[in-house]
Amino acid sequence: MIIRSRPQRLLTMLLSNKGSVLKSIRGRLALVLLVALLVTLGGGWLYHYKVTLTFSPFLLMGLPLAIFLGFRNSVSYDRFWEGRNLWGELLIVSRNLARQALSLPPAVDQAQAKGQVYRVLAFVYALKDHLRGGAKTDLSALLPAEELAAVEASPNRPNALLLGIAKSYAALSHQGQIAPDLMARIDDQITRLSYILGGCERIKSTPIPYSYLLLLHRTVFVYCLLLPFGLIDTVGYLTPVVVLVLAYTFFGLDALGDEIEDPFDADPNDLPLDAISRNIEINLKALLGESPLPAPLEPKDRVLL
Amino acid sequence: MIIRSRPQRLLTMLLSNKGSVLKSIRGRLALVLLVALLVTLGGGWLYHYKVTLTFSPFLLMGLPLAIFLGFRNSVSYDRFWEGRNLWGELLIVSRNLARQALSLPPAVDQAQAKGQVYRVLAFVYALKDHLRGGAKTDLSALLPAEELAAVEASPNRPNALLLGIAKSYAALSHQGQIAPDLMARIDDQITRLSYILGGCERIKSTPIPYSYLLLLHRTVFVYCLLLPFGLIDTVGYLTPVVVLVLAYTFFGLDALGDEIEDPFDADPNDLPLDAISRNIEINLKALLGESPLPAPLEPKDRVLL
Amino acid sequence: MIIRSRPQRLLTMLLSNKGSVLKSIRGRLALVLLVALLVTLGGGWLYHYKVTLTFSPFLLMGLPLAIFLGFRNSVSYDRFWEGRNLWGELLIVSRNLARQALSLPPAVDQAQAKGQVYRVLAFVYALKDHLRGGAKTDLSALLPAEELAAVEASPNRPNALLLGIAKSYAALSHQGQIAPDLMARIDDQITRLSYILGGCERIKSTPIPYSYLLLLHRTVFVYCLLLPFGLIDTVGYLTPVVVLVLAYTFFGLDALGDEIEDPFDADPNDLPLDAISRNIEINLKALLGESPLPAPLEPKDRVLL
Amino acid sequence: MIIRSRPQRLLTMLLSNKGSVLKSIRGRLALVLLVALLVTLGGGWLYHYKVTLTFSPFLLMGLPLAIFLGFRNSVSYDRFWEGRNLWGELLIVSRNLARQALSLPPAVDQAQAKGQVYRVLAFVYALKDHLRGGAKTDLSALLPAEELAAVEASPNRPNALLLGIAKSYAALSHQGQIAPDLMARIDDQITRLSYILGGCERIKSTPIPYSYLLLLHRTVFVYCLLLPFGLIDTVGYLTPVVVLVLAYTFFGLDALGDEIEDPFDADPNDLPLDAISRNIEINLKALLGESPLPAPLEPKDRVLL
Amino acid sequence: MIIRSRPQRLLTMLLSNKGSVLKSIRGRLALVLLVALLVTLGGGWLYHYKVTLTFSPFLLMGLPLAIFLGFRNSVSYDRFWEGRNLWGELLIVSRNLARQALSLPPAVDQAQAKGQVYRVLAFVYALKDHLRGGAKTDLSALLPAEELAAVEASPNRPNALLLGIAKSYAALSHQGQIAPDLMARIDDQITRLSYILGGCERIKSTPIPYSYLLLLHRTVFVYCLLLPFGLIDTVGYLTPVVVLVLAYTFFGLDALGDEIEDPFDADPNDLPLDAISRNIEINLKALLGESPLPAPLEPKDRVLL
Repeated sequence: MIIRSRPQRLLTMLLSNKGSVLKSIRGRLALVLLVALLVTLGGGWLYHYKVTLTFSPFLLMGLPLAIFLGFRNSVSYDRFWEGRNLWGELLIVSRNLARQALSLPPAVDQAQAKGQVYRVLAFVYALKDHLRGGAKTDLSALLPAEELAAVEASPNRPNALLLGIAKSYAALSHQGQIAPDLMARIDDQITRLSYILGGCERIKSTPIPYSYLLLLHRTVFVYCLLLPFGLIDTVGYLTPVVVLVLAYTFFGLDALGDEIEDPFDADPNDLPLDAISRNIEINLKALLGESPLPAPLEPKDRVLL
Repeated sequence: MIIRSRPQRLLTMLLSNKGSVLKSIRGRLALVLLVALLVTLGGGWLYHYKVTLTFSPFLLMGLPLAIFLGFRNSVSYDRFWEGRNLWGELLIVSRNLARQALSLPPAVDQAQAKGQVYRVLAFVYALKDHLRGGAKTDLSALLPAEELAAVEASPNRPNALLLGIAKSYAALSHQGQIAPDLMARIDDQITRLSYILGGCERIKSTPIPYSYLLLLHRTVFVYCLLLPFGLIDTVGYLTPVVVLVLAYTFFGLDALGDEIEDPFDADPNDLPLDAISRNIEINLKALLGESPLPAPLEPKDRVLL
Repeated sequence: MIIRSRPQRLLTMLLSNKGSVLKSIRGRLALVLLVALLVTLGGGWLYHYKVTLTFSPFLLMGLPLAIFLGFRNSVSYDRFWEGRNLWGELLIVSRNLARQALSLPPAVDQAQAKGQVYRVLAFVYALKDHLRGGAKTDLSALLPAEELAAVEASPNRPNALLLGIAKSYAALSHQGQIAPDLMARIDDQITRLSYILGGCERIKSTPIPYSYLLLLHRTVFVYCLLLPFGLIDTVGYLTPVVVLVLAYTFFGLDALGDEIEDPFDADPNDLPLDAISRNIEINLKALLGESPLPAPLEPKDRVLL
Repeated sequence: MIIRSRPQRLLTMLLSNKGSVLKSIRGRLALVLLVALLVTLGGGWLYHYKVTLTFSPFLLMGLPLAIFLGFRNSVSYDRFWEGRNLWGELLIVSRNLARQALSLPPAVDQAQAKGQVYRVLAFVYALKDHLRGGAKTDLSALLPAEELAAVEASPNRPNALLLGIAKSYAALSHQGQIAPDLMARIDDQITRLSYILGGCERIKSTPIPYSYLLLLHRTVFVYCLLLPFGLIDTVGYLTPVVVLVLAYTFFGLDALGDEIEDPFDADPNDLPLDAISRNIEINLKALLGESPLPAPLEPKDRVLL
Repeated sequence: MIIRSRPQRLLTMLLSNKGSVLKSIRGRLALVLLVALLVTLGGGWLYHYKVTLTFSPFLLMGLPLAIFLGFRNSVSYDRFWEGRNLWGELLIVSRNLARQALSLPPAVDQAQAKGQVYRVLAFVYALKDHLRGGAKTDLSALLPAEELAAVEASPNRPNALLLGIAKSYAALSHQGQIAPDLMARIDDQITRLSYILGGCERIKSTPIPYSYLLLLHRTVFVYCLLLPFGLIDTVGYLTPVVVLVLAYTFFGLDALGDEIEDPFDADPNDLPLDAISRNIEINLKALLGESPLPAPLEPKDRVLL
């Protein structure tokens, strides 16, 4: 996630390279610009044939294109925001489970509660690894040794941890420390963790149908490539400028959609899973009364991962 | 579901045939192209009559058409995404039921738990068959013989299985192994399975109202067919190219909507129910501690079914 | 609901009368066509005055009109889809109540369970009558005589049935057959039935605000009526054709919105409540183990009611 | 709420004054028309300066305007529909509470149940007064005297009633008439009443941000006022007609949004809270077995309040 | 929140400065106006080069721009409205917790109930401080001394208070004053408080992805800056007026989105958290039967904070 500096200056906004999608659309922009330059120099002639395109077809084509880009935009953003909601709920449910461990039994066993809360924390980090890939967080400080082994052996670490969390809380009920009704409330929260896990997996594993993107990419590309022919007779030598501005908007929207479509990657515009995980750790340890607490993650070069 | 190769090359994107809707709109495209060619060669004359269409009416018509295609797009995608959500929840609820069987009773009877979890697995495969049609999965490895017979005799296999699942879990409560409050939590999850079944059946059995599609198909078709007459006087010999690009966009959007409207079919852009079912099987068997686990399904020729 | 034939031929699609909204917009289309013909023959002169309309105002007006039609479309479709969801949930909840009656008590009394399930079935048919109007389904085979009398005397048959259902299930709890926690789950499902009833009544009794429709109808009508004057100077003798195509789209969208706005009517594009009710009956009787089961309803002339 | 007459005649629709927003936009329409007439008579000259506006800027401006009006429309309608949903749920929850009072205790005390249900009815009428303002309904027939005094003294009558309802139902539990689990279900329904109250208060107290409306009103107004200058050179003496039609659409949409934005007022397009309250009264008294039941409210002059 | 005066006069609306976004877009408007004036005076010549821009490219660019602004608008408003919903639910849940403390135990201990309700009130004020920043509300009148110290020491005051609330209610259960089932209902409400806290934190900490805003700001700016060149040849000396109106709309929509995107700030269009908190205080103290009640906050200069 890119942190915005406030107040924002006009020049910074116009020239800043940070957070711009320029990098990922550079190639396509250059190609379109090249075509526009050639068309302008050649006056819209291709060898001996005057290309008779006018402005009209682009208006007809612009309409469905805009609608389509708008649709894709919304879908990508919804995926991003659903991902954010799931990680927001992860913070909430983690705090709930800690609160329940510390308030519901008549006599709280601090060591048992710590074990329960640490397992939840292990789930958070395991979920992050599960979504981001890359090196796995070492969970040995959070789990008893034999449980750790079982979790590491599982094809799905977070799901294996859910079973461990469930057993550690069920022990309260089996010991008669907590009435079944209240245990049922804890089971509800564990079920929410399961929904969060499944929801993240769903977003991760199901991209927007490929044919949509193919159709969109193609239409945008053909539109931008033909555009100079349609503008040269009215706009003249400014054709490359106009084409560049329009192509920047269309390709930019398209690239942005690509970037936030999978919100769990470690791209600059994606969700700061590292920072959220650390925040959960701080919250849970504060509820356990531990000190000193770990420090929140700070953005590096205005980017929070 | 089509698996996207990353990074994506420009040329692949433009020329790839995989995932393109070209195949299903070939006929209509050819027809429109033929008309465009005839109009171009004839200079917009039909026998002795000059067709006086201009660009203007198409702009007027393009507006509602774009809005309408956008609407239909959203509706189709929502159906697709709701189907995906239901199958995502199926994974979640299956894991929950397994977790509950393995953590809530003070002394877990491994054989009984396995029987319960296998019934859930049988539900997953029966639901897939129920939605996809085709050959039915053999459930004999997952169910006791007499239950299997009852299930096969039912007009709705997944619903019959729900009753079996409910009875197998209720036994825990009747044996006094589990308090009614916690049994109620399990009943909640079985109720979620029932919602998943009913939700999938609803999507499957209720298409978008036919009259919508009829109105849309007709408008798109007339639009594309008349378009050459409106373009010939300004765009000249490029008319067939422009008509082709526009028709490809409109017919393509329309065909895509048709394809994902029913997300449970075995089309390339539909949901990979086989792969999801296998994934659930792996997850459930891992929770039971079985090994070796079945392997995940791999995409064939970039398509995952 | 109209059943689509697949595969769909191009000609069928273009010429089919089934499912077309042509019938309900015939009058308005003819009027607009007549005006267009008169304008074309008169060359855009009204008595001695040349009507100086051009294409431009229609483009300005087309924009809000398209947005507005899109809005109305979405609202109508949302009502249709919410109605479908409610009836989908009715199937789900009916099955849940049957499943709970057959699995939760340690010793199921088959006759008592049948009585409970039949009351739910009576609710389904009474709800259908409540929404559709017309002749009331005879419930005497489903209810004990004295309960039937009370239900028939009530101003709201389905709501009276809910009280009967609640009492029949509460008996399980009063007899000590079922723990209060599990009875609470059953009460949850009865509460869902109550939400379904109230949701259907809300859709039925609250149309889209009348002033919206008035404004929309008027704008569409004035637009189509003035259109020939704006087209005659550029499109010439093709004016009636263009006007007809545009009017068909606008009036068609409007008429479709009208038709599905109240999804419980017995119109061709409305929900097939008869077929859904029969399907629920089949499902419930299958769970009770009855045979032979009633047959599903078949579409008549491609329409399922 | 305005009751639509069906079948609807074309002429009625075009000329009807009932339900039209004409009244509230009369002033602005007249002003714009006056400007259009002056511009037409003056041929687009302002003193000695020819106003060089053309059609183009209005097309540019029309685009964001249409999007903006569409947005505002949706937001207003969503508020209207959320208000309707809340009052729909009020009917549902009232019936649920009555059903629970009459079915859950093993031996129902009719007088006690009547007292409970009457308190719910008092809540319905108090909520209506709370939202509509105006004279307060006399609740003395529905509440015991000392409770009535406490409710009337409270700054928030419906909220004070919720406490009374909760106490009256909790008595069942304190008397041992009902298990805590089932009492918890009743508490759920009372919590829903609390959500309904809070939801209505939220809609009532939080209008759409004022700056949005300001920006929208201003843009629409400037657009309509400048429009004649842009049309006069192409449309000529028909300018006032075109301006009138466009201004009617834009101002009308704007005024409609204003009207339904606060759905609890007593405007013709707002929710018929009186009729819904009466309907709840009929339903609750029917469940209690009272007779004769009050009559439903009838629309006056096609308006139901 | 700005309080609208009703009835609203036309002149007030057009000239009012209150609630206008003019202040925040002054600079950009002035810059664009300056360019427009220079272009108008220079007749569209830049040194010796005639700038050949026409109206057409702006129409092409206006389409995606409008869609994009519409998208951003909806997202910002959704954030605003979700924030409002969360604070609306805060009122609801606070009242629920007070109601439950006062109705569920057979013998209510008034002092204990007051302590419980005051902790909830402390949560409300701590949440406001947490979101708004600035001076922290003094909670010493609402909490016992030792709890206050623990809360003040926590990195997250509202979350620390949730644990205190949970413990104060759990005491009822540990004393046997309330059955576990009903305690579970109270735990549900505390969990809702936790969701409200987490939801507000999510909105506060996750802005709309920066790259979106960057792309949007840039496109709007370039569009407005180039616009005069495109209009000068058709609109002539009126170019600055038209540019000003269009730039006001585009920049205004953009600035409004910025303002309500973070609804918890103390800007004029943001949520009146102070007033809502005071309202909750009045409601809770009325339920406790305290008097005199604090007065509602009044708007200052038509702004409620």
